[in-house]
Amino acid sequence: MTKPRVLIIGGGFGGLAAAQALGRRAVVTVVDRHNYQTFLPLLYQVSTAGLAADHVAYPIRGALRDIRGKFRLGAPISVDHKNKNVKLDSSEILDFDHLIIAMGSVTTDFGIPGVAEHALGMKTIQEALEIRAEVMRRFEDLCRFEDETRFSIAVVGGGPTGVEMAGALAELVRGPLRNDEEHAARHIDIILIEAGPRLLPMFDDSLSQKTKLALEKMGVKVLVNTAVKSVESRKILFADGSSTPSEVTIWAAGVKGNPDMEKLNVPIVGNRVDVEETLQVRHYPHIWAIGDIAGAKGENGKFLPMVAPVAMQQGRFVAEQIIRAEKSAPLKKFVYKDKGSMATIGRNKAVVQVRRIKFSGFLAWSAWLFLHLFYLMGGRNRIGTIADWFWNYLTFDRGNRHILDSIND
Amino acid sequence: MTKPRVLIIGGGFGGLAAAQALGRRAVVTVVDRHNYQTFLPLLYQVSTAGLAADHVAYPIRGALRDIRGKFRLGAPISVDHKNKNVKLDSSEILDFDHLIIAMGSVTTDFGIPGVAEHALGMKTIQEALEIRAEVMRRFEDLCRFEDETRFSIAVVGGGPTGVEMAGALAELVRGPLRNDEEHAARHIDIILIEAGPRLLPMFDDSLSQKTKLALEKMGVKVLVNTAVKSVESRKILFADGSSTPSEVTIWAAGVKGNPDMEKLNVPIVGNRVDVEETLQVRHYPHIWAIGDIAGAKGENGKFLPMVAPVAMQQGRFVAEQIIRAEKSAPLKKFVYKDKGSMATIGRNKAVVQVRRIKFSGFLAWSAWLFLHLFYLMGGRNRIGTIADWFWNYLTFDRGNRHILDSIND
Repeated sequence: MTKPRVLIIGGGFGGLAAAQALGRRAVVTVVDRHNYQTFLPLLYQVSTAGLAADHVAYPIRGALRDIRGKFRLGAPISVDHKNKNVKLDSSEILDFDHLIIAMGSVTTDFGIPGVAEHALGMKTIQEALEIRAEVMRRFEDLCRFEDETRFSIAVVGGGPTGVEMAGALAELVRGPLRNDEEHAARHIDIILIEAGPRLLPMFDDSLSQKTKLALEKMGVKVLVNTAVKSVESRKILFADGSSTPSEVTIWAAGVKGNPDMEKLNVPIVGNRVDVEETLQVRHYPHIWAIGDIAGAKGENGKFLPMVAPVAMQQGRFVAEQIIRAEKSAPLKKFVYKDKGSMATIGRNKAVVQVRRIKFSGFLAWSAWLFLHLFYLMGGRNRIGTIADWFWNYLTFDRGNRHILDSIND
Repeated sequence: MTKPRVLIIGGGFGGLAAAQALGRRAVVTVVDRHNYQTFLPLLYQVSTAGLAADHVAYPIRGALRDIRGKFRLGAPISVDHKNKNVKLDSSEILDFDHLIIAMGSVTTDFGIPGVAEHALGMKTIQEALEIRAEVMRRFEDLCRFEDETRFSIAVVGGGPTGVEMAGALAELVRGPLRNDEEHAARHIDIILIEAGPRLLPMFDDSLSQKTKLALEKMGVKVLVNTAVKSVESRKILFADGSSTPSEVTIWAAGVKGNPDMEKLNVPIVGNRVDVEETLQVRHYPHIWAIGDIAGAKGENGKFLPMVAPVAMQQGRFVAEQIIRAEKSAPLKKFVYKDKGSMATIGRNKAVVQVRRIKFSGFLAWSAWLFLHLFYLMGGRNRIGTIADWFWNYLTFDRGNRHILDSIND
């Protein structure tokens, strides 16, 4: 039996999990516009000078070596459903027997004006370096002013990403920056803005309250029930007519399926690819969708959360279904096994919820640390990350405070 | 006695050595256009995916904490010699009792046409990331072509920088890239071009020959006695009328004093600041120049080499002279203590020359490794670098192969 040719668009958590699960049972090709996987859950630590940018990236070719998979740098521009091939922006045409759409998500502004122009996203390493550079530049401005001028950094979105970002910013400002120049650091305000009634809405209410209190204790101003109406330069306007100054606005309010999926001409439902319970794209049995871009629903009838564990489980699931389909075996329905949620707030502080079990504090923080190291691909990144974390923890310092974005050469 | 106000323009090896040697005996302010020091001797390892970009940078404020020094992000735009102050591009005016010019050097093209447009320099982290991105993009192109197309990477300049770059490129291509995609890696040529008769002209001839043989054994095409006439897109023209294809041209042929020194209105000699033997700028006893930008001469009457040890020795020397001047004690003449030269060629391969002593191979490589770690500032960078090096050495891999420049988001 010849091996099926499986083309995977997207080398994130889902795409690489699928590739590795297929292994050498298929001829695998992964396409991505970056030659590396971005370890998104740790991106906020790059923004806040905790980790080296290179250490939250992992070469996709490195992940494909063992399975002898191919890689192509680029993005799809069209699909030929009849002849089963995808054309890339390099003009190369790749044939497939099975196509896996794993293109992930992009920041969404929910149509709120000014977000694209005045807020910084949190989806790419370049964006993370831009946030780091902006924060450090504002800090240097304050150091020069030596007066009572204040600067505000606002994080919009009270989910895990926003909470982790706000907490890490508070630690950066109150730790290393205060050691650098105390007067300036004391003039930086950090604001976390959530439209809903509480932070971390997917967690138990008691953990939401603990998180809010912990952040406030760290000096973060937490605004709940506060919907953003528009973002302007150095200012955020709220739905109730009030506003807050914000020199750096970080947008962690939400993501939506990558709109590039439209180029693949597949049915879309609510910004995601419409899939059957088997994760086959509706009407296209040889095309599959996984991860943030897949419109799979949970038991409650709602879309599954856009998180790495869903993508990885779906990637492994689809790999098995493709092998079954090749053998003409009946396909299964995907069921997400929710292993729980966690968010880190700061040093020794995190919240964890696994079904009915919930805990916080040092134990939760240790669990967070262990799991993120475990999921971090590649020994080098693991060693480098341990080294940086160990150093940061012992010295209360953050060594990667460099202004290193494209503006600055 | 009030402490003298010492303004240091430039936070490189020289500027920070001066700041740290002055310690709390002076009120020190360091000005730099980056908020970090770049560890230039290891920049080629960023270009060749060996080290994380953040780990060859060190926050200047971190280096100034112990001495309670100030830092200003920016560059000088003018000087007022009468009132002893410097105006920065932020419009801030900084008063000084002593000014130390430590602005380092920039890449020079010796007037050769096309260098600025078609060659990549090796002086900043952004340039290192650009080289890395260009090499990796060309490699990805070859992977797509799957034919007999060849790509050339040319390094111009046979001094330590060019030798180290060519050697590290050869190891990247023949190691990790060959593991990634063997056919493509076999179609990359690396060329080292030197105008003079031999590589590493400051070393003994026997070491030059060993270096050339070692590089050739690693697959580098070494061209000596080959002067570049012009650089074009994808091509280098030589003085003798011949040419070589070069998709990526890396310019390691030389540096000159930073031309921004002109804004400080001081006497210049041969692209450097004209200094007395005390390192005071000629006619300006309260202004000093150190490092690559200082026109200090050695016993042979020639300018001292533009290397970190000269800058660091001069920084410490000037710190002492300023203290002496404040006490009206007689000033000394600067004498450079040459501790020898070293260049690494590759894994277990380096050349070292200390006066009449010269050695090469594993011992020289170990010496290189030890010295670079010793000089690397900051424990975090040291730990992170050891982690990356350890990993690279054991696995023959280079984990930082990410295309992460400004073009790519």
